[in-house]
Amino acid sequence: MSTTPSPATYANRQWFYTQRPTGRVGPEHYTLVDSTLDATLSTNEVIVRARTISVDPYMRIQQHARNTYDVPHPLGIVQRAGIVGQVVTSNSSQFAEGDWVLGYTGWQLFAKCHANDLQKLDPARAPVNTALGVLGMPGRTAWFGLMEAGRPKPGETLVVSGAAGAVGSLVAQFGKRAGCKVVGIAGGPDKCRYLLETLGLDGAVDYRAHTDTAALQAEIQRQTGGVDVYFDNVGGRVTDAVIPLIKRRARIVICGTIAQYDGGLDKPDMGPRFLQHMLYERATIQGILARDYVHRMDEMRTIIEPWVQSHSIVFDETIVDGFEQLPHALNMLFEGRNTGKLLVAV
Amino acid sequence: MSTTPSPATYANRQWFYTQRPTGRVGPEHYTLVDSTLDATLSTNEVIVRARTISVDPYMRIQQHARNTYDVPHPLGIVQRAGIVGQVVTSNSSQFAEGDWVLGYTGWQLFAKCHANDLQKLDPARAPVNTALGVLGMPGRTAWFGLMEAGRPKPGETLVVSGAAGAVGSLVAQFGKRAGCKVVGIAGGPDKCRYLLETLGLDGAVDYRAHTDTAALQAEIQRQTGGVDVYFDNVGGRVTDAVIPLIKRRARIVICGTIAQYDGGLDKPDMGPRFLQHMLYERATIQGILARDYVHRMDEMRTIIEPWVQSHSIVFDETIVDGFEQLPHALNMLFEGRNTGKLLVAV
Repeated sequence: MSTTPSPATYANRQWFYTQRPTGRVGPEHYTLVDSTLDATLSTNEVIVRARTISVDPYMRIQQHARNTYDVPHPLGIVQRAGIVGQVVTSNSSQFAEGDWVLGYTGWQLFAKCHANDLQKLDPARAPVNTALGVLGMPGRTAWFGLMEAGRPKPGETLVVSGAAGAVGSLVAQFGKRAGCKVVGIAGGPDKCRYLLETLGLDGAVDYRAHTDTAALQAEIQRQTGGVDVYFDNVGGRVTDAVIPLIKRRARIVICGTIAQYDGGLDKPDMGPRFLQHMLYERATIQGILARDYVHRMDEMRTIIEPWVQSHSIVFDETIVDGFEQLPHALNMLFEGRNTGKLLVAV
Repeated sequence: MSTTPSPATYANRQWFYTQRPTGRVGPEHYTLVDSTLDATLSTNEVIVRARTISVDPYMRIQQHARNTYDVPHPLGIVQRAGIVGQVVTSNSSQFAEGDWVLGYTGWQLFAKCHANDLQKLDPARAPVNTALGVLGMPGRTAWFGLMEAGRPKPGETLVVSGAAGAVGSLVAQFGKRAGCKVVGIAGGPDKCRYLLETLGLDGAVDYRAHTDTAALQAEIQRQTGGVDVYFDNVGGRVTDAVIPLIKRRARIVICGTIAQYDGGLDKPDMGPRFLQHMLYERATIQGILARDYVHRMDEMRTIIEPWVQSHSIVFDETIVDGFEQLPHALNMLFEGRNTGKLLVAV
C-alpha cells in the first residue's frame, strides 16, 4: 500500500458514448466530459491512471442497433475499452502505487476498480502495451483462431485479410511459423510492402489496386494457387474474391467482417452466394471470438512471450497521442490507417 | 455361371446426355438411342439388366459448365447414374443369372460390367431399391452428414430444408432419434402434412406460403425458437431465412444448394451477406459429400438396416414408370414433385 498521501479527488476526463452511429463511427458519436473522481476507497479497491487506451474494431460491432454477440453498448456511459495503466492509490494488498496493470476501465483517465478486476503487468517480462496487443486480446484471437479453427499444416497456403492489422499481422506470422505459405491482403502499397519486407510473407495483395472483384480474385489466385486456410478479418468483396479459390477441405476462419461495420450489420448488403463452394470442397467456416479463449491465456503467453522477448515476432503499434483523440482513433481503424495494433497514449 | 444359353446380343436402350443445360434440365438435353449390346463376355464380366434407375440432384451439379466437385459430365455419353438390376448373363463366379445387384451403369437398360463394379443385393434383407435410397447414397449422406457434421444433441433444435426429399426425410428422422426437436421446411401443404403426420416431426414450414423472406424467417423462428443444427439441401432464400436464427455454436451442414442448380452455380445469384452471424454465434458451416463416407457404408448399414427391417423408419419412394421418362423424372426433382427418393422403374 502506498505511503504517499493521496489526494481527495482526481480531475478525470471521460469519453461518453452518446449517439449511435448508423454509418462510420467518429467523434460526433462521443461526448468529452470533465469530472471529478472521489478518491475514497473501500477495502480491495484501487485507483488506476490509464496510460494507454485501446481502440478495437469490436467496439463498432457493439454499437449496432440489434444484438450481435452482446447486447448493444449502452448509450450515456463511458466507452468500454481495455487499458494499460498505473495504480495511483491502493487500498489492496495486491497492488502498490506505481504498479502497471491491465484493466477494462474504458475511455477515461482515472478509474476506481476492485483489485480482482485488474491484472498486474511486469514491465521486465514484456513491454506493458503488449497486454493490449500481441500478449492480449488480439494475440489470443490470432493464436487460437488460427491454430484451433484454422488448423494450419506445413506446406499449406494461408491467406489473411486485414493482414497489416493488429490480429492479421500476428496470424500471418503464426502461419509462417506453422510452415505455411502466407499471402496477406491489405489496402495500399505501403501496407503490402510492410507485409513482404517487415513480416516476411510470401505474397501481398493490395485490394485497393483491384476495384473489380474478378481482377482481385485473379491476383489472389496468381499469388496463391489456391487457398487451404483463409483467416478473414474483413468480409465483403475481399472475401467474395477468396472463397471461390478454396481448396479441398479448406478452413475459413471468420474473425471479423469489418467491411460491414459501417452499417452493413444492421442492414446487410448483398454479395454473391457461395455455399456451393463449401459443398464442392467439403470446406468449413467457423466464427471465432476472443472471449472463447480467455481461459487459455496462460497457454498462449507461455508460447508467445518468449517470441516477444527474443524479438522474433513483429508486434508493431500505431500510437495516437492524446486522450482527446480517442474517437478519431477509433475512426482510423475503419479508414485502414493503422499498421499493427492501434493505441492511444493518454 | 448360367447354364441357360445366352442370346448373342441384347436390344439396348440408352439415354445419352447430349446438350448442356443453362437453366432447368429436361428432356431436350438428352437423346434416346436404341442400340445393340454384344453379349460376348470376358472373364469376370457380367451383363446387368437395370430394373430401377436413380435420378439425383447431384446430376445437375455435374452438368454445370465449370468444374464443381468433379469435372463436368461429358457430353455424348450415357447419363451416369446408380441402378438396381439383375444379372442376365454371367461369366463370373461371383454372380449368377437372376442375382440382384447395385451398379453405376447409368441410364441404359443393359450394361456389360466387370464383377468388381457390382455389389450383390440380398432381397431377403431389405427391399432392393433401398440400395438407391435409405441404405445407399442418400442414406449415407443423411446419416454421416447429420451425425458427423451436424453433431445433434438431445434437446437441440434441428431444422432441415428439403425435408420431404430423399436425404431430408432421413435426416429429419435421424434427428428425432438423436433426441432433437425437428422442424422441416418443404414446399406446399401436402409435403408439410407429410412431415408432421408421416414423419412425425415437431414442426413443418411451407416455404411457398411465404414469398417474403422476412415472413418466412418469422415463421421458422416461431416454430423453432432458434436453430442449433441446420441441415441444408436447398440454399437460396430458405437458407437466407434460417441463418440469422442460429444459436450459439450452431452447426450448419451444406449438403445441397438445389435453389442454385438451375444455372446459379455458373453465375451465382446474390444474397444477403451473413458471415457476421457465424462470428456472433461462433457457429460452423461444413460442406459434405456422399463420396467422403463411401468407405463407411458398412458402419451405416449396421445401424440403419435393422430400422428398415423393423419398419421403424419411413423410406418412401416416388416411382416414375418407364425408361423413356428418365429425363422428365430428373426434371421433377427441381420442380419439387417427389416425396422421398425419386426412382424410375424400367
